[in-house]
Amino acid sequence: MEAELKDLLNDLHTLKISLLDPSCQALVNKMQSRIEHLSKMEKLGNNQRSKIKDMSAEVVDSNPYSRLMALQRMGIVDNYERIREFSVAIVGIGGVGSVAAEMLTRCGIGRLLLYDYDKVELANMNRLFFRPEQAGMTKTDAAVQTLSDINPDVVLESYTLNITTVQGFETFMSSLTNKSFRPDKEGCGVDLVLSCVDNYEARMVVNQACNELNQTWMESGVSENAVSGHIQLLVPGETACFACAPPLVVASGVDERTLKREGVCAASLPTTMGIVAGLLVQNTLKYLLKFGTVTPYLGYNALKDFFPTMEMKPNPQCSNAACLERQKEYTLAKPARDAAARAKMEAEPLLEPEFLHEDNEWNISVVDDDEVQDPNASSGVADLPEGLVHELPSADEFQKPFISEETSNSVDDLDELRRQLEALNS
Amino acid sequence: MEAELKDLLNDLHTLKISLLDPSCQALVNKMQSRIEHLSKMEKLGNNQRSKIKDMSAEVVDSNPYSRLMALQRMGIVDNYERIREFSVAIVGIGGVGSVAAEMLTRCGIGRLLLYDYDKVELANMNRLFFRPEQAGMTKTDAAVQTLSDINPDVVLESYTLNITTVQGFETFMSSLTNKSFRPDKEGCGVDLVLSCVDNYEARMVVNQACNELNQTWMESGVSENAVSGHIQLLVPGETACFACAPPLVVASGVDERTLKREGVCAASLPTTMGIVAGLLVQNTLKYLLKFGTVTPYLGYNALKDFFPTMEMKPNPQCSNAACLERQKEYTLAKPARDAAARAKMEAEPLLEPEFLHEDNEWNISVVDDDEVQDPNASSGVADLPEGLVHELPSADEFQKPFISEETSNSVDDLDELRRQLEALNS
Repeated sequence: MEAELKDLLNDLHTLKISLLDPSCQALVNKMQSRIEHLSKMEKLGNNQRSKIKDMSAEVVDSNPYSRLMALQRMGIVDNYERIREFSVAIVGIGGVGSVAAEMLTRCGIGRLLLYDYDKVELANMNRLFFRPEQAGMTKTDAAVQTLSDINPDVVLESYTLNITTVQGFETFMSSLTNKSFRPDKEGCGVDLVLSCVDNYEARMVVNQACNELNQTWMESGVSENAVSGHIQLLVPGETACFACAPPLVVASGVDERTLKREGVCAASLPTTMGIVAGLLVQNTLKYLLKFGTVTPYLGYNALKDFFPTMEMKPNPQCSNAACLERQKEYTLAKPARDAAARAKMEAEPLLEPEFLHEDNEWNISVVDDDEVQDPNASSGVADLPEGLVHELPSADEFQKPFISEETSNSVDDLDELRRQLEALNS
Repeated sequence: MEAELKDLLNDLHTLKISLLDPSCQALVNKMQSRIEHLSKMEKLGNNQRSKIKDMSAEVVDSNPYSRLMALQRMGIVDNYERIREFSVAIVGIGGVGSVAAEMLTRCGIGRLLLYDYDKVELANMNRLFFRPEQAGMTKTDAAVQTLSDINPDVVLESYTLNITTVQGFETFMSSLTNKSFRPDKEGCGVDLVLSCVDNYEARMVVNQACNELNQTWMESGVSENAVSGHIQLLVPGETACFACAPPLVVASGVDERTLKREGVCAASLPTTMGIVAGLLVQNTLKYLLKFGTVTPYLGYNALKDFFPTMEMKPNPQCSNAACLERQKEYTLAKPARDAAARAKMEAEPLLEPEFLHEDNEWNISVVDDDEVQDPNASSGVADLPEGLVHELPSADEFQKPFISEETSNSVDDLDELRRQLEALNS
């Protein structure tokens, strides 16, 4: 629009020169000032931020990365700026995928690959991200428009296609393997695939692609009644793949398409979808930037605010051939993995606690949750003001009944356990 | 801008009539078509949706409420359209408050009251909602701009003020008591106050206002290291108020302001803030539309995906005089409350299960979680495909260790319990 207004001004200038009548000239002058005003308004509306070469931790209002780089000073993340090296593919730019894309964009992710074939409709307005004026645009185009305005530093690749078609799948696979963004990267061209689709068929396609490419991915979903959802981490060969443990509706042999009827639509809420997107991207950040615990499976029941977790090992009878291949590789690599883990443990001596700041004017100290598990232990009591005790158990105590020691060790040691059991029985 | 372009076209028309030179006329024709093109583009950019009088459940792409009204057909909400009667006040339009406002706007809430005194900065761009081109605008103005585009049906009231000042507090109080939106409403002019502020002082002000007005509110917060947060329901007289149980940092007597140092800023993440906003608005919807369980307190630890819950009863030695008043009223109203509860129970006979749909072509049935608690019970097994069992306990079993029967009954029966104990001891 800016260019068009400039052309108009040039035309008026030409016209003015060839005019002799003073009243006509006055009219042209008025029109010139009108257009100048329009140009000014247009510039104000396009007050976009310029690209930023290096992420800075400087605390000034104009730095969009200050609150993210602060994660380093707070001791949460070792090297936040590494986020610029990562590529994340998001399949499905709907109620969950679009919000996940916006969160990663605002976090300054290096590159986003977006896949969807659908168009924005007013019926999508009960979820975050898309705006009514984008109705009619493809979801990928609308997403690129919004995301590039929010953060021009992110490299956006948009694929308007259906991954469940033959041609769509081919483009999907070749886009995932393209390494032009970081030619030195091992494995695939992306660091993580996020599945944010709304049907079983598309999930099975993502599963197939990731099993073939040995690519770690995360799956997400929201129930048709809008009040529950889940996220799940899938590492080919190491965890269950999507075909190892199909959902109940599939295991019971009902064709998903017969469940959908004309004129009936699923319910959805911006809350549930926003929460699931948040949990998904939080797990993504923990996975990429190596902090906290990456959760293998997290459910969300909105009616009761209940958040179940679990772990799923691969199914040795999985129907997916690529999954069986990855399982074999994972088992074969076990001795090397164990040796590497031992070497790492031996190389890292027990570290003395280090002080990050020499001066500590306010006597601020970070207390590990583990240290205050027992409210009667002297160290714990010392950190609480007089008269206050911990009402709830710490996160560690709470998690115990869920993931028992036996489940955590699991498959790898099963043979060993069986041997011990047989020795006891004999 | 549309009006300005129309004026330009009129000017050109006048000019053309007074011109005789054909080359000048050709130039004017060219300019006319340029401006017509600009008008067309402008209209496309302003493709805003019009207001909608009644919420419809019709499943068409152009209906922004179809997926929300579907909550009724799914049996989650009795009457979704009631949401249009409710007013919600949001104090603090930052990383949590702005997302909460957007979620409620997309849900079609009746009226939103927004309070903030701050301006949008590029440093806020690592959280959802605000766009870089809004930098420099007040948060309230920018929010009204975005929200009214998203859903013109919502009545937006914006208050650019600091509620911790004397004048700000007065305006805050009078805005909460204003009943012009729904003159028949009992109590205050709003149905819920959401506190989304980032400091203790502002929380205490919201607490004071809500205790004085006997107004239910919800509090939210995110930690300075960005990886934990919480939401809390506060019902004056019935639950702990914010002064009943102050946070540790305050209980230990440290002045909050001394903790903040020049050039040091808190970390923040769009994930954590989006999740806390989602949990807050989900609890708001459950409270207003009466479905599921409204959670009294829900914590979120992002590093471990741990979600603690608890309940807090009011402190009879609370330092807040208005809180003590509300506690007294609540205790005095106990007999009436008990009688009402008894009457309600007697009036509602045990209902026979009703069938919503006469025809059930696909044999779809809703299974209550409670019915499949025991995987060995015949009813539970019958609902699962052969060979599958439930891996995890149901939500009910899980919740038991958290909120024990004794805690749930609590204060009201404390005297009774003490009497029983004394009788046993004597």
